[in-house]
Amino acid sequence: MKRTIFFLSDRTGITAEALGETLLTQFPGVDFVRTSVPFLTSPDKAMAVLARIQAAERNDGAPPIVFSTLTDPQSQAVIASGTQFVFDLFGTWIEPLEKALGTQSSHTAGQMHGISDVNLYLRRVDALNFTLDHDDGLRPRDMHEADVILIGVSRSGKTPTCLYMAMHYHLKAANYPLDADELRFDTLPPCLRGVRDKLYGLSIDAEHLSRIRHGRRPNSRYASVEQCRTEVAGAQSLFRAVGIPYIDTTSISIEEIATTIQQHFAFARPYR
Amino acid sequence: MKRTIFFLSDRTGITAEALGETLLTQFPGVDFVRTSVPFLTSPDKAMAVLARIQAAERNDGAPPIVFSTLTDPQSQAVIASGTQFVFDLFGTWIEPLEKALGTQSSHTAGQMHGISDVNLYLRRVDALNFTLDHDDGLRPRDMHEADVILIGVSRSGKTPTCLYMAMHYHLKAANYPLDADELRFDTLPPCLRGVRDKLYGLSIDAEHLSRIRHGRRPNSRYASVEQCRTEVAGAQSLFRAVGIPYIDTTSISIEEIATTIQQHFAFARPYR
Repeated sequence: MKRTIFFLSDRTGITAEALGETLLTQFPGVDFVRTSVPFLTSPDKAMAVLARIQAAERNDGAPPIVFSTLTDPQSQAVIASGTQFVFDLFGTWIEPLEKALGTQSSHTAGQMHGISDVNLYLRRVDALNFTLDHDDGLRPRDMHEADVILIGVSRSGKTPTCLYMAMHYHLKAANYPLDADELRFDTLPPCLRGVRDKLYGLSIDAEHLSRIRHGRRPNSRYASVEQCRTEVAGAQSLFRAVGIPYIDTTSISIEEIATTIQQHFAFARPYR
Repeated sequence: MKRTIFFLSDRTGITAEALGETLLTQFPGVDFVRTSVPFLTSPDKAMAVLARIQAAERNDGAPPIVFSTLTDPQSQAVIASGTQFVFDLFGTWIEPLEKALGTQSSHTAGQMHGISDVNLYLRRVDALNFTLDHDDGLRPRDMHEADVILIGVSRSGKTPTCLYMAMHYHLKAANYPLDADELRFDTLPPCLRGVRDKLYGLSIDAEHLSRIRHGRRPNSRYASVEQCRTEVAGAQSLFRAVGIPYIDTTSISIEEIATTIQQHFAFARPYR
């Protein structure tokens, strides 16, 4: 069964997609075809989008599902006037929220993640720059300036997790790779001994790691299951011996790894 | 006026926060204090969180606002049983969606961004690695492998935007800095001439750029308003002369810049 999905937003569409996708995961049997329409900022644009929705309906033989975070009641009304299944994610909640807060809403377009707050923007960019400058064991002497330092074997997910934490939590996230040499003893590399409280370990299933490494360097010793097993066992042994908290990244997303670490250290999330 | 906000989720809480924050921006007069509770995966944990919600209510003298994407009806019921303003972002929509699709939902916990799809994970990590390897004009010879190449003066937002596009759209996003020397003529640097169709320009208000640069190198010539004005004018002149699309990044977020570029090139979004 095929159904067309529209995500409508007057800004980026990130919110409409996030909630829409969470709901769609509950229907694994349906073949969804998705269209995102960001920056839908006028009733005229809404008219044009409505025509696309109606064309999809004729094409599919079933009405599309529309997830909308439009904040402009007029644009929202245009969409709702011509198609059946409009999930008005903003309008549905704004009145109950006004009642809960006992105050009127300002009826302005959604303004998430504003660059207009220069300080917030600079914190984010500074965190990203620090993270780029301290990827993969670079500049180990500055490690004490990091908010958090991820350690683990090559390809266990350190770099993407650090970048995510910098981008979305504004954390200065360094990472240090544990290589086979350093894993022969259950002791931390010297440069990490003074920053033990900032360390968090990433582990991974050895077979899964091998598949990931084969994607990078096919048929190398580096990618062999044996090598991966030795390194992963060594890293886990180190984490336990020294008492470093760690997480298995095999079957969870970068978002989930980052959230787990953020919660462990009770880092503040940068709400806007 | 102070009000406590809770974001509850059985996964990361990203969705509850995204929709909640969009709604809260409509109430600029209220002083919100936020708590995010991710990985709320059992009725027992819900009981413990309910106690925190009730404590906040006593403390504030008003009930907290709870945004929940809990998918487990039992945990959701525990929360709803003991506090007044629970916005059930999942439960409210799942039944109408079942009706719209004419099929039952699977009632499983939300699984966004699964690492379990190895190919999707590898595409994401490959995009991030490419982007890291082609930041700030590194390896200009590989530019043809990029999906998109951002150009602009130093500190116009190229690196954070590239990282965002790699992380969230899985795009191989290179960037190349336009320096004062290269901006003396309205011609592209040689390494960019064969990849004109992949170029997108970032511009920025010169005074704003000067403030950002002062944060990095206080009182330098680099950060002076005069220098910023010259460079920004040169970059805009180049964009127009060569016909490069560009966007002013001064008052928009990294998310909005990335979405604008994604829409311009009609890059597919990696829906899950």
